[in-house]
Amino acid sequence: MKLPDLQIIGTLHGDIKRLEDAPKSFDESERLGTLEIFPEYQEGLDGIVPGETIVVLFWLHRAARDILKVYPRGDRSRGLRGVFATRSPARPNPIAVSELKVVAIHGNRLEVSGLDILDGTPIIDIKKKIGR
Amino acid sequence: MKLPDLQIIGTLHGDIKRLEDAPKSFDESERLGTLEIFPEYQEGLDGIVPGETIVVLFWLHRAARDILKVYPRGDRSRGLRGVFATRSPARPNPIAVSELKVVAIHGNRLEVSGLDILDGTPIIDIKKKIGR
Repeated sequence: MKLPDLQIIGTLHGDIKRLEDAPKSFDESERLGTLEIFPEYQEGLDGIVPGETIVVLFWLHRAARDILKVYPRGDRSRGLRGVFATRSPARPNPIAVSELKVVAIHGNRLEVSGLDILDGTPIIDIKKKIGR
Repeated sequence: MKLPDLQIIGTLHGDIKRLEDAPKSFDESERLGTLEIFPEYQEGLDGIVPGETIVVLFWLHRAARDILKVYPRGDRSRGLRGVFATRSPARPNPIAVSELKVVAIHGNRLEVSGLDILDGTPIIDIKKKIGR
Protein backbone atom coordinates (compact mmCIF):
# COMPACT_ATOMS: atom_id res chain seq x y z
CA MET A 1 0.00 0.00 0.00
CA LYS A 2 1.27 3.47 -0.83
CA LEU A 3 -0.01 6.27 1.39
CA PRO A 4 -1.36 9.49 -0.11
CA ASP A 5 0.61 12.73 0.14
CA LEU A 6 0.77 14.70 3.37
CA GLN A 7 -0.72 18.18 3.25
CA ILE A 8 1.19 21.03 4.90
CA ILE A 9 -1.36 22.99 6.96
CA GLY A 10 0.98 25.75 8.12
CA THR A 11 4.47 26.87 9.12
CA LEU A 12 6.18 27.40 12.46
CA HIS A 13 7.81 30.78 13.12
CA GLY A 14 10.19 30.79 16.06
CA ASP A 15 13.62 31.82 17.25
CA ILE A 16 15.28 28.38 17.10
CA LYS A 17 17.35 28.76 13.94
CA ARG A 18 19.95 26.02 14.36
CA LEU A 19 19.59 22.39 15.39
CA GLU A 20 22.18 22.83 18.15
CA ASP A 21 20.01 25.57 19.72
CA ALA A 22 16.90 23.38 19.98
CA PRO A 23 15.81 22.12 23.43
CA LYS A 24 15.86 18.32 23.63
CA SER A 25 12.08 18.11 24.02
CA PHE A 26 8.94 20.16 24.55
CA ASP A 27 8.83 19.33 28.26
CA GLU A 28 12.18 21.08 28.69
CA SER A 29 11.28 24.25 26.82
CA GLU A 30 9.59 27.59 27.48
CA ARG A 31 10.46 28.94 24.01
CA LEU A 32 7.78 31.03 22.27
CA GLY A 33 6.73 30.97 18.65
CA THR A 34 3.84 31.25 16.22
CA LEU A 35 1.93 28.54 14.36
CA GLU A 36 0.84 30.20 11.12
CA ILE A 37 -1.99 28.09 9.74
CA PHE A 38 -2.72 28.62 6.05
CA PRO A 39 -6.04 30.45 5.44
CA GLU A 40 -7.63 27.45 3.71
CA TYR A 41 -7.32 25.46 6.96
CA GLN A 42 -8.20 28.27 9.44
CA GLU A 43 -11.78 27.03 9.91
CA GLY A 44 -10.32 23.90 11.51
CA LEU A 45 -9.01 25.97 14.45
CA ASP A 46 -12.50 26.89 15.76
CA GLY A 47 -12.77 25.82 19.38
CA ILE A 48 -9.10 26.14 20.36
CA VAL A 49 -8.83 28.57 23.29
CA PRO A 50 -5.94 30.46 24.92
CA GLY A 51 -4.50 28.67 27.95
CA GLU A 52 -5.17 25.25 26.44
CA THR A 53 -2.42 22.71 25.75
CA ILE A 54 -2.61 21.36 22.20
CA VAL A 55 -0.82 18.49 20.46
CA VAL A 56 0.99 19.68 17.33
CA LEU A 57 2.48 17.41 14.67
CA PHE A 58 5.42 18.75 12.67
CA TRP A 59 7.24 17.25 9.70
CA LEU A 60 10.95 17.53 10.57
CA HIS A 61 12.09 18.28 7.04
CA ARG A 62 15.79 18.35 7.97
CA ALA A 63 15.89 15.03 9.84
CA ALA A 64 17.56 11.85 8.53
CA ARG A 65 15.15 9.06 7.54
CA ASP A 66 17.57 6.17 7.02
CA ILE A 67 18.71 5.69 10.63
CA LEU A 68 17.26 3.00 12.95
CA LYS A 69 19.72 3.23 15.88
CA VAL A 70 20.75 6.37 17.78
CA TYR A 71 22.52 7.45 20.96
CA PRO A 72 19.61 8.77 23.04
CA ARG A 73 20.01 12.53 23.58
CA GLY A 74 23.47 12.26 22.01
CA ASP A 75 24.79 10.46 25.13
CA ARG A 76 27.18 7.74 23.96
CA SER A 77 27.71 6.31 27.45
CA ARG A 78 24.49 4.26 27.38
CA GLY A 79 24.97 2.74 23.93
CA LEU A 80 22.81 2.66 20.83
CA ARG A 81 19.05 2.29 21.00
CA GLY A 82 16.32 1.77 18.40
CA VAL A 83 14.81 5.05 17.20
CA PHE A 84 11.29 3.81 18.08
CA ALA A 85 12.38 3.62 21.75
CA THR A 86 13.42 7.31 21.65
CA ARG A 87 12.19 10.79 20.69
CA SER A 88 15.06 11.26 18.21
CA PRO A 89 14.12 13.41 15.20
CA ALA A 90 15.86 10.82 13.01
CA ARG A 91 13.34 8.08 12.11
CA PRO A 92 11.71 6.66 8.96
CA ASN A 93 8.87 9.22 9.17
CA PRO A 94 10.30 12.27 10.97
CA ILE A 95 7.08 13.47 12.59
CA ALA A 96 7.43 15.37 15.89
CA VAL A 97 4.57 15.31 18.41
CA SER A 98 4.80 18.40 20.63
CA GLU A 99 2.51 19.48 23.46
CA LEU A 100 2.36 23.28 23.32
CA LYS A 101 0.51 25.84 25.40
CA VAL A 102 -1.65 28.31 23.47
CA VAL A 103 -0.73 31.81 24.69
CA ALA A 104 -2.91 33.82 22.27
CA ILE A 105 -4.88 33.41 19.04
CA HIS A 106 -5.02 36.01 16.26
CA GLY A 107 -7.07 34.62 13.38
CA ASN A 108 -4.91 32.02 11.68
CA ARG A 109 -1.92 32.60 13.98
CA LEU A 110 -1.53 30.74 17.27
CA GLU A 111 1.11 32.06 19.69
CA VAL A 112 2.47 29.06 21.61
CA SER A 113 5.06 28.23 24.25
CA GLY A 114 7.12 25.09 24.80
CA LEU A 115 8.79 24.91 21.40
CA ASP A 116 11.63 22.49 20.64
CA ILE A 117 11.28 22.79 16.86
CA LEU A 118 13.25 24.72 14.23
CA ASP A 119 11.92 27.93 12.67
CA GLY A 120 10.33 27.23 9.27
CA THR A 121 9.27 23.65 10.04
CA PRO A 122 6.05 22.50 8.27
CA ILE A 123 2.99 21.83 10.48
CA ILE A 124 0.88 18.82 9.49
CA ASP A 125 -1.73 18.49 12.28
CA ILE A 126 -3.14 19.91 15.52
CA LYS A 127 -5.18 17.87 18.04
CA LYS A 128 -6.89 18.24 21.38
CA LYS A 129 -4.71 16.86 24.16
CA ILE A 130 -6.10 13.90 26.10
CA GLY A 131 -4.49 11.54 28.58
CA ARG A 132 -5.14 8.50 30.66
CA MET B 1 7.06 22.67 -0.55
CA LYS B 2 5.96 19.11 -1.23
CA LEU B 3 6.70 16.60 1.51
CA PRO B 4 8.31 13.23 0.72
CA ASP B 5 6.28 10.02 0.90
CA LEU B 6 5.40 8.44 4.22
CA GLN B 7 6.83 4.98 4.82
CA ILE B 8 4.58 2.32 6.33
CA ILE B 9 6.61 0.63 9.09
CA GLY B 10 4.04 -2.01 10.03
CA THR B 11 0.40 -3.04 10.38
CA LEU B 12 -1.99 -3.21 13.30
CA HIS B 13 -3.76 -6.52 13.97
CA GLY B 14 -6.74 -6.25 16.30
CA ASP B 15 -10.33 -7.17 16.84
CA ILE B 16 -11.89 -3.79 15.96
CA LYS B 17 -13.24 -4.54 12.50
CA ARG B 18 -15.84 -1.81 12.05
CA LEU B 19 -15.66 1.93 12.72
CA GLU B 20 -18.78 1.75 14.89
CA ASP B 21 -17.02 -0.76 17.18
CA ALA B 22 -14.03 1.49 17.87
CA PRO B 23 -13.68 3.15 21.30
CA LYS B 24 -13.72 6.95 21.04
CA SER B 25 -10.13 7.24 22.23
CA PHE B 26 -7.20 5.27 23.64
CA ASP B 27 -7.87 6.52 27.16
CA GLU B 28 -11.26 4.80 27.07
CA SER B 29 -10.00 1.45 25.78
CA GLU B 30 -8.55 -1.77 27.16
CA ARG B 31 -8.65 -3.52 23.77
CA LEU B 32 -5.71 -5.75 22.90
CA GLY B 33 -3.90 -6.08 19.59
CA THR B 34 -0.55 -6.61 17.88
CA LEU B 35 1.74 -4.11 16.21
CA GLU B 36 3.49 -6.10 13.47
CA ILE B 37 6.58 -4.12 12.51
CA PHE B 38 8.06 -5.05 9.14
CA PRO B 39 11.42 -6.91 9.45
CA GLU B 40 13.37 -4.11 7.78
CA TYR B 41 12.41 -1.76 10.65
CA GLN B 42 12.69 -4.25 13.54
CA GLU B 43 16.10 -2.94 14.65
CA GLY B 44 14.38 0.34 15.54
CA LEU B 45 12.43 -1.42 18.33
CA ASP B 46 15.54 -2.15 20.46
CA GLY B 47 15.05 -0.66 23.92
CA ILE B 48 11.24 -0.91 24.10
CA VAL B 49 10.32 -2.99 27.16
CA PRO B 50 7.13 -4.73 28.34
CA GLY B 51 5.09 -2.64 30.75
CA GLU B 52 6.11 0.61 29.07
CA THR B 53 3.60 3.02 27.52
CA ILE B 54 4.57 3.97 23.96
CA VAL B 55 3.24 6.59 21.57
CA VAL B 56 2.14 5.04 18.28
CA LEU B 57 1.28 6.99 15.12
CA PHE B 58 -1.19 5.40 12.70
CA TRP B 59 -2.30 6.54 9.25
CA LEU B 60 -6.11 6.30 9.35
CA HIS B 61 -6.48 5.15 5.76
CA ARG B 62 -10.29 5.15 5.88
CA ALA B 63 -10.77 8.66 7.30
CA ALA B 64 -12.05 11.65 5.30
CA ARG B 65 -9.45 14.33 4.57
CA ASP B 66 -11.68 17.11 3.22
CA ILE B 67 -13.57 17.98 6.42
CA LEU B 68 -12.61 20.92 8.68
CA LYS B 69 -15.65 20.99 11.01
CA VAL B 70 -17.11 18.07 12.99
CA TYR B 71 -19.53 17.34 15.80
CA PRO B 72 -17.15 16.29 18.62
CA ARG B 73 -17.69 12.60 19.47
CA GLY B 74 -20.73 12.65 17.18
CA ASP B 75 -22.66 14.77 19.71
CA ARG B 76 -24.73 17.31 17.75
CA SER B 77 -25.97 19.12 20.86
CA ARG B 78 -22.81 21.19 21.25
CA GLY B 79 -22.51 22.29 17.63
CA LEU B 80 -19.73 22.06 15.09
CA ARG B 81 -16.10 22.49 16.03
CA GLY B 82 -12.86 22.78 14.04
CA VAL B 83 -11.16 19.41 13.55
CA PHE B 84 -7.91 20.77 15.02
CA ALA B 85 -9.75 21.36 18.34
CA THR B 86 -10.79 17.66 18.43
CA ARG B 87 -9.41 14.11 18.15
CA SER B 88 -11.68 13.33 15.18
CA PRO B 89 -10.15 10.87 12.69
CA ALA B 90 -11.36 13.19 9.90
CA ARG B 91 -8.66 15.84 9.26
CA PRO B 92 -6.38 16.92 6.42
CA ASN B 93 -3.69 14.43 7.52
CA PRO B 94 -5.51 11.58 9.28
CA ILE B 95 -2.72 10.61 11.69
CA ALA B 96 -3.79 9.10 15.02
CA VAL B 97 -1.54 9.48 18.08
CA SER B 98 -2.28 6.64 20.53
CA GLU B 99 -0.68 5.92 23.88
CA LEU B 100 -0.54 2.13 24.21
CA LYS B 101 0.79 -0.16 26.90
CA VAL B 102 3.28 -2.81 25.77
CA VAL B 103 2.08 -6.16 27.14
CA ALA B 104 4.71 -8.40 25.50
CA ILE B 105 7.33 -8.33 22.75
CA HIS B 106 8.02 -11.22 20.35
CA GLY B 107 10.68 -10.14 17.86
CA ASN B 108 8.96 -7.77 15.44
CA ARG B 109 5.53 -8.12 17.10
CA LEU B 110 4.46 -5.91 20.01
CA GLU B 111 1.36 -6.99 21.93
CA VAL B 112 -0.34 -3.81 23.17
CA SER B 113 -3.44 -2.72 25.07
CA GLY B 114 -5.54 0.44 24.82
CA LEU B 115 -6.43 0.22 21.14
CA ASP B 116 -9.00 2.51 19.53
CA ILE B 117 -7.86 1.78 15.96
CA LEU B 118 -9.23 -0.46 13.20
CA ASP B 119 -7.65 -3.81 12.34
CA GLY B 120 -5.35 -3.45 9.31
CA THR B 121 -4.43 0.20 9.89
CA PRO B 122 -0.91 1.18 8.74
CA ILE B 123 1.62 2.13 11.45
CA ILE B 124 3.93 5.04 10.62
CA ASP B 125 5.88 5.71 13.83
CA ILE B 126 6.54 4.67 17.45
CA LYS B 127 8.02 6.99 20.09
CA LYS B 128 8.99 7.02 23.74
CA LYS B 129 6.27 8.69 25.82
CA ILE B 130 7.24 11.85 27.69
CA GLY B 131 5.16 14.42 29.50
CA ARG B 132 5.40 17.73 31.27
